[in-house]
Amino acid sequence: MAKIRKAVITAAGNKQQALPLQTLVDRDGESKSVLRIIVDEVIRAGIDEIAVVVSPNTQDAYRAAAGEAGKQLIFIEQETSQGYAHAVYRSKDFVKDSPFLHLVGDHLYVSADGRGCAEQLIEIAALEKCSVSAVQATKEFNLLHFGTIGGQRVPEQDKLYHIHDVIEKPTPTVAEQRLVIPGLRAGSYLCFFGMHVFSPLMIDLLKHRFEASDQEPPKHLSEALAELAKRERYLAVELAGNRYEIAAKYGLFEAQLALAMEGSDRDEILTNILDYLATRTLQNGK
Amino acid sequence: MAKIRKAVITAAGNKQQALPLQTLVDRDGESKSVLRIIVDEVIRAGIDEIAVVVSPNTQDAYRAAAGEAGKQLIFIEQETSQGYAHAVYRSKDFVKDSPFLHLVGDHLYVSADGRGCAEQLIEIAALEKCSVSAVQATKEFNLLHFGTIGGQRVPEQDKLYHIHDVIEKPTPTVAEQRLVIPGLRAGSYLCFFGMHVFSPLMIDLLKHRFEASDQEPPKHLSEALAELAKRERYLAVELAGNRYEIAAKYGLFEAQLALAMEGSDRDEILTNILDYLATRTLQNGK
Repeated sequence: MAKIRKAVITAAGNKQQALPLQTLVDRDGESKSVLRIIVDEVIRAGIDEIAVVVSPNTQDAYRAAAGEAGKQLIFIEQETSQGYAHAVYRSKDFVKDSPFLHLVGDHLYVSADGRGCAEQLIEIAALEKCSVSAVQATKEFNLLHFGTIGGQRVPEQDKLYHIHDVIEKPTPTVAEQRLVIPGLRAGSYLCFFGMHVFSPLMIDLLKHRFEASDQEPPKHLSEALAELAKRERYLAVELAGNRYEIAAKYGLFEAQLALAMEGSDRDEILTNILDYLATRTLQNGK
Repeated sequence: MAKIRKAVITAAGNKQQALPLQTLVDRDGESKSVLRIIVDEVIRAGIDEIAVVVSPNTQDAYRAAAGEAGKQLIFIEQETSQGYAHAVYRSKDFVKDSPFLHLVGDHLYVSADGRGCAEQLIEIAALEKCSVSAVQATKEFNLLHFGTIGGQRVPEQDKLYHIHDVIEKPTPTVAEQRLVIPGLRAGSYLCFFGMHVFSPLMIDLLKHRFEASDQEPPKHLSEALAELAKRERYLAVELAGNRYEIAAKYGLFEAQLALAMEGSDRDEILTNILDYLATRTLQNGK
C-alpha cells in the first residue's frame, strides 16, 4: 500500500452542521473550533491534503472556523439527506486510487499518548500495509450507537485484531452470536472509534454500491466494510486514547474535560471544578 | 417608571461573534445555543420585545441559532469597532422613551432560585421604580475584568445598594479609595453582573455622549452609568445566582457545569465527571 498522504473528514450530517463550529480549548491551551482541532490532529499525523465533506452553503463558515489551516482545506459538498456512506463516496475524485485516512466530524479524539490518535493509526497502517480501523472496547448497552466488528486477535499482538465481520449498531443478541472477540472481557465488544485508514478498494466498493448496483444505496459504511473484510486483509487496533461523541448531549462538555485533563491545563480545570462544587455547597449551606 | 416591556441584548463585540452560536445544554436538559438560553431568560421574565445588537452579516446565523424565538427578535447592526456603549446606543429607536432590560451576550446567568436572574431583577426594578444593575461580590484580583460600583447598603435591605459611583476596571488602589462598600467583606467589591434595568435617561445620556459632545465617544458604559448615578436614584442588587463570562478561556465549560448542576441533570453531570476521573486514574495505574 502506498504512503498515506490524504485525509477525508465527513461533516455533512444533519446533526453535525453546527458541531465543527463549536469552540473548545485544545490540549495545548488554545481556544479552537472543533474543526480546527480535528484538522490539527490530521496535520500532526503528517498529512496535508485534507478534504472536508460538508453540507451546501457551509464552506465559508467552516473555512473561517479552521483558522490558519482553512487555506489548505478542500471542501466537497453533499446534500445532507444522502447519508454517511455517500459522504465518504463523494471524496472519490479527491482520493483517486490512493489509500486515505478518514475521520468523522462529530467525534473528537483525545490521545493518552505523546502521539496523536491519527498519528498512531497511520503508523500501524504503514507497518501492516492494509486497511486499519481504530476501535474501542465498548460495553454491550452502548452497541446501539456504533458500528461493531467481529474478529480475532492477531497472534503476539496485544491491541491488533483481524476483522472478519462488521455490523452497524447490532442488537446484543446479534453481537453475542457474531461479534464476540476471544480474549475480550465478557459483554464487551470492539466498536468503531470514528477513525480509519482505507486502502483504495474502499472507494471501489462504494462505487459498486452507488453506481453499479440496482439495490437501494446504503446509509452506513458498515456494509461496505464487511465486504472489505471479505476481500482484503483488514485490521482493527485499539489506540492509546479515547473518542468523544460530541453530538451526544454532554459530548462537548466531556470532550472539553478530557482535552484539559490530558493537556497543559489539567490543574486549572480540576481547580475550577472543585472550586465550583465547594462554592455551591457553601451557598446551599448558608 | 413605566412597566418594563423591552430588552436589549448586545452581541456585536469582536470576541462575541461566535459565542452566541455555541451550544450548551440548558438547565431544562435541552441543547440550545447560548443566544437561545439568553433569549429564554428574557422571555421567562415576561418580556417579548427583544432587540439583539449584532455585527454586520450575522443576522441569519443568529436568527437560526435562536430557534423558535428567532421569529420575534429584532436585529440591529453595529460595526464591531465602535465599542460597547455605542452598541447600547444603537438600540435608541427600538427603546424610544421606555425603560428596558439590558443583557450582554457574552455572559450566561445561572439562577440559584426558582426564578430566573432577569425575572428577579425586573421585580426589584418595578418595586423600586428606578434603574437597577445586578452586581456580584468579586475579589480584588478580579477587578480588572469588570465595571465596579461604589455606594452603600439601602437601610434594612440585605442585598440592595445605592450606587454613588461607577468605574470601569478599577485598579485595586482606586477601588480602595472610592469603591469600598461599608459592610462588605474586606477586599471584596461589587462588580457588574452584565444585567441591568435602565430608565429612559440612559439613552439620553448616551445621546449626549455620541451626538452633542465634542469629546471622544466612550467605549464602555461605565462613564454614562456614573452620570446616571449623579442624576437619578440608581440601585444595585445582588441576585440569587451567578454570572459566567463565557468569553473566558474555560467560560463555556464552567457555564455548562453550573447549568447542569442547577438543573435537572445534576446527577448525570456529576456521574460523568466522576466516571471520567475514575477511568483516567485506573488507566494511568495500569
